[in-house]
Amino acid sequence: MLYIEKLYEKLGTEKVTQQETELKRHSKDESMHDAVYPDVVCFPESKEDIQIILHIASEYQIAVTPFGAGSGLEGQVIPIQKGISLDFQNMNKVLDFSPEDMRVTVQPGIMKSELNQFISQQGLFFAGGPDYDATIGGMTATNASGTRAVRYGVMRDQILDLEVVLADGMSFHTGTKAKKSSSGYHLTSLFAGSEGTLGIITEITLKLHSIPDYSTVARCTFETPELCAIAAQNILLNGIPIMRMELIDSVSIGIINKQCGHDFPVKHSLFLEFAGPKNTVAEEVKLASKIMHDLGCENWDAASDSISKKKLWEARVQLAVSFQDLKGMKEIGGDVCVPISQLPKLVSFTRSSMDESGLKGALWGHIGDGNFHTSILYNPEVNGEQELAEQINDAIVNLAIEVGGTCTGEHGVGLGKKKFQVSEHGAALEMMQRTKQLYDPKGILNPGKIFS
Amino acid sequence: MLYIEKLYEKLGTEKVTQQETELKRHSKDESMHDAVYPDVVCFPESKEDIQIILHIASEYQIAVTPFGAGSGLEGQVIPIQKGISLDFQNMNKVLDFSPEDMRVTVQPGIMKSELNQFISQQGLFFAGGPDYDATIGGMTATNASGTRAVRYGVMRDQILDLEVVLADGMSFHTGTKAKKSSSGYHLTSLFAGSEGTLGIITEITLKLHSIPDYSTVARCTFETPELCAIAAQNILLNGIPIMRMELIDSVSIGIINKQCGHDFPVKHSLFLEFAGPKNTVAEEVKLASKIMHDLGCENWDAASDSISKKKLWEARVQLAVSFQDLKGMKEIGGDVCVPISQLPKLVSFTRSSMDESGLKGALWGHIGDGNFHTSILYNPEVNGEQELAEQINDAIVNLAIEVGGTCTGEHGVGLGKKKFQVSEHGAALEMMQRTKQLYDPKGILNPGKIFS
Repeated sequence: MLYIEKLYEKLGTEKVTQQETELKRHSKDESMHDAVYPDVVCFPESKEDIQIILHIASEYQIAVTPFGAGSGLEGQVIPIQKGISLDFQNMNKVLDFSPEDMRVTVQPGIMKSELNQFISQQGLFFAGGPDYDATIGGMTATNASGTRAVRYGVMRDQILDLEVVLADGMSFHTGTKAKKSSSGYHLTSLFAGSEGTLGIITEITLKLHSIPDYSTVARCTFETPELCAIAAQNILLNGIPIMRMELIDSVSIGIINKQCGHDFPVKHSLFLEFAGPKNTVAEEVKLASKIMHDLGCENWDAASDSISKKKLWEARVQLAVSFQDLKGMKEIGGDVCVPISQLPKLVSFTRSSMDESGLKGALWGHIGDGNFHTSILYNPEVNGEQELAEQINDAIVNLAIEVGGTCTGEHGVGLGKKKFQVSEHGAALEMMQRTKQLYDPKGILNPGKIFS
Repeated sequence: MLYIEKLYEKLGTEKVTQQETELKRHSKDESMHDAVYPDVVCFPESKEDIQIILHIASEYQIAVTPFGAGSGLEGQVIPIQKGISLDFQNMNKVLDFSPEDMRVTVQPGIMKSELNQFISQQGLFFAGGPDYDATIGGMTATNASGTRAVRYGVMRDQILDLEVVLADGMSFHTGTKAKKSSSGYHLTSLFAGSEGTLGIITEITLKLHSIPDYSTVARCTFETPELCAIAAQNILLNGIPIMRMELIDSVSIGIINKQCGHDFPVKHSLFLEFAGPKNTVAEEVKLASKIMHDLGCENWDAASDSISKKKLWEARVQLAVSFQDLKGMKEIGGDVCVPISQLPKLVSFTRSSMDESGLKGALWGHIGDGNFHTSILYNPEVNGEQELAEQINDAIVNLAIEVGGTCTGEHGVGLGKKKFQVSEHGAALEMMQRTKQLYDPKGILNPGKIFS
């Protein structure tokens, strides 16, 4: 293809490849969505490289799909119209680090773990993103978050400035290096979460936080998900700056115990983490314990040693991946977010739907945010199982939207949540589509994601 | 004028007026910008009323300028192209209050104080906005903030959902009632801070916070603004969730003492507030005191009684308005925001510029955010004084942008900061203007604000 020859000509063979293994690696993410091979993979090293690629793509009307670590869960990196996969692995540098301003500027391909290692020498950490590793660019593009969002907010809340390149090669900064601004339209928040459909992000300036001196984890159980939700509400209503607060239902606790050899009480559970100066944490744990016991919690267990902390949060992470290794089985993952008061309804509905269907499933939630995940297991060889799993997932999403929530709390829309965009956004969707048209009139930037 | 007859016909005389006193009241805000009378003032009571007004305005190509409390500081509510002033005083209701979700939905005309009174029965408060009173709609439109932003973030961070009406009458919600979402483009942040130029906001859903049980105020002095900034950085680096942290330079302390009868030490000062559960606050104050004394602070004074608290924060508020009553004099207000590390440079530059000019001036800053205000006094009757005051203000803004900051931290662009939009936003300004064109093709919504 002529445009690929042009790419080789302008960028050289080190930054362009059509190797089968690379095409395969860039054909999919961690989701259940079908793989599609790109025609070519580019590895830009600078904004200028990206401008060259976009000029060629624009001239030949070729799709450009950004690729970070391939860890996404809704198919955002799958090049469904083939064309160019834009891999940021060589744009992974720290460009500017200002510890005194608690601020860092990075290229989008840097992994969260690499960033945190770099800045930890100064007692700082980056508080956004999921619990597993991912690129900062991918987290920005999907407005990712995770267990710590209850304290620090989502990815969008961590970003001070972006440098972006539009489809026509035009480049600009969306913000400044100041902590806040009331100047002009907030394009930073427009690009954060736009999944590569409006422009290519080339630099990201992030707020940082200080690493807490000390932390304590705790765990307790309640008779019902309702009581778990009320307990979580009371933690927030009492102004405790909880670091993490997770709901895991009794069936999912059983799965953790069985798969990972734990012996947690098989009841609806809250996993908690408190972090800060030692004496402050001690006060917070005391207050939280009182709140929980006043509501009738059982099995309260708090610990500050590293082994207990590791055990607790590893169990939580293991739940999220507990089904991944079951041979021959596939899973469909859910990610709705609802007002906390509606979470018990969602949990009950989900658990009974899964139980009645006969399919195996786990559920857990970032309860302080009302964000709630499911993992439903199906055998693709058994007729109707995939459809059944999808039906349950659809019903959960529809219920979430009905009670005032959203189809995705942190994974993004990608391919999997496109069908819910009309019911969630209504007339706003038209303005989103017209915004897409304004920024990318030829429709070359990650086409077919968020909307068709 | 024909369109005014149509307004009377469709809305009735109770919702439309051309009374001189009302035209005058809607001709200006608290800024130094020249008053312009609208042709007519409308008082809509519902979204439907607003749609009627916009249909008429659209048909006759008449400017529509939203008006909240008139408390703005950059001329946003001044109807510079005359036409319709859209006053929200009759759209001031609480529409939905969910204490268990720490969430409230209001109409834009409600005052912050009214909202806080309503929700305080449930132990909750709205943490956004300036320290003086304003409408929630106005605060949303300008992305306002104030002393508590260092802990709770700016207005944009408080908003879960907006209902908006576009110039053509199309209406939609920008978000959901969930605490977070990764679905679609974040139109909420686009409208927050757009100063009524993209659409009319008709409903606002806000996050709430719990009222802290207890608080302690403290005050201390340092030899230089640099030391104040380092002290503030160390408070943040130690993870203390400080409620307020204000810098007031020595000259401004002198003004407070003289104008308001206080006896604060005439030195560069930090005013602080800690808030939370009693024991936690005590730990935070202990840690902060150590941090300050390690840096050589003097005059450390902490108190938890209500008289001391009132005295301290009243003095801070008095500084902001200390020049307002000086007969025959006018003031020009500044509002830049820079990385904290750059604040000492700005403070020194500003103080020496004011001193060398011979003009009276005060300066104070939300030091935790790097947001920094000035109030420069001039006599409009004295030749050249206004120009001199404006020159100093311009030089401060240019320096702020040069060191990576913004021309406005919380007041918005309005009329006063239009001239800095090119140097601050560069090529991004073109996309902002094209966004304006997309949302308001006839240019009837608050024309001439942010950009021409």
